[in-house]
Amino acid sequence: MRMLDGRTGLDMLTPEECSALLAADHVGRLAVVDGFSPVVFPVNYALDGRDIVVRVSEGSKLDAVGRANACFQLDGFDREGRSGWSVMVVGRLEEVTPYDRDYARVAALPLEPWAEGDRSHLLRLVPSRVTGRSIGGAR
Amino acid sequence: MRMLDGRTGLDMLTPEECSALLAADHVGRLAVVDGFSPVVFPVNYALDGRDIVVRVSEGSKLDAVGRANACFQLDGFDREGRSGWSVMVVGRLEEVTPYDRDYARVAALPLEPWAEGDRSHLLRLVPSRVTGRSIGGAR
Repeated sequence: MRMLDGRTGLDMLTPEECSALLAADHVGRLAVVDGFSPVVFPVNYALDGRDIVVRVSEGSKLDAVGRANACFQLDGFDREGRSGWSVMVVGRLEEVTPYDRDYARVAALPLEPWAEGDRSHLLRLVPSRVTGRSIGGAR
Repeated sequence: MRMLDGRTGLDMLTPEECSALLAADHVGRLAVVDGFSPVVFPVNYALDGRDIVVRVSEGSKLDAVGRANACFQLDGFDREGRSGWSVMVVGRLEEVTPYDRDYARVAALPLEPWAEGDRSHLLRLVPSRVTGRSIGGAR
C-alpha cells in the first residue's frame, strides 16, 4: 500500500526504493551548514554499505566534519509530466583518514570527481535518517 | 576572461550567467536548517526581481522564516560528458502575507506547485549572495 503524506500531498518512498535510487546514480548534492547558512554543492559519490562517500578539498564541506549534521540529496524531475522524486539522507559527516582501519576499502571505492584540483579528503556521511518522496507517480 | 577557482578547479559563473540559469527554470531546491541539520527539498519557484518565491505548507521550510539563512540551489549535469553547473542563492527567507504591500504582485506570480495539499504560505528568499560554478564547460 502506498503511503501518502497528508500534509504535503506527497507519496512517501519506501526504504527499499530510497536505497535503489541511491545505488543507481553517482552524482548528488551535499548540504552543510556554513556559518549561519545552509550551502549545497553537487558531488560525485559512492556507497559504502549505507554510507555516502565523497572526496573533497579544503573548504566548507570539510569544515562541516564533526560539527552539525549534513544532508545528502538526490532527485529527478520530469518537468513536462510535472512529476519527480527526491531522496534525502541526513547524518553525521566523518573524515576517513589513512589511520582508519576502513581507509583502504573506502579509498578504493569507484569515486571519480569530475573536478580537477586537490581532493585528497575522503568524507563519509553516516545516515541517521533516510527519507524519500515522490509526486506524480515518479520513481 | 573566464575565472577559475584555483582551489577547486571549477569555473566560476558570472552574475549574468547565474541570473540567466535561474530565469530559465522553475524547479529547484530549497535548503533550510531544521534542528541540527540542513535539509533539502525540491520546490517549484518563480522570480520576483532577484527574489526566489516559493509556496509551502506548514513545516520546516516555513519554520525557517526569520531564523538562520536559507539557500536555493539549481544545477544541471551531463553524466556522460562529466560536465555540469550549479547556482546557489543564499539569503534571508521571509513570508509574504496579505498584509504586505507586495502581496498582490507576488501572489500573482506564475507559481504552480506540482504537489497537491495546502500550500497557502508564500515565501521569498531575499538574496545576499549568488554564486555559480561549472565544470567541463557546461553552461
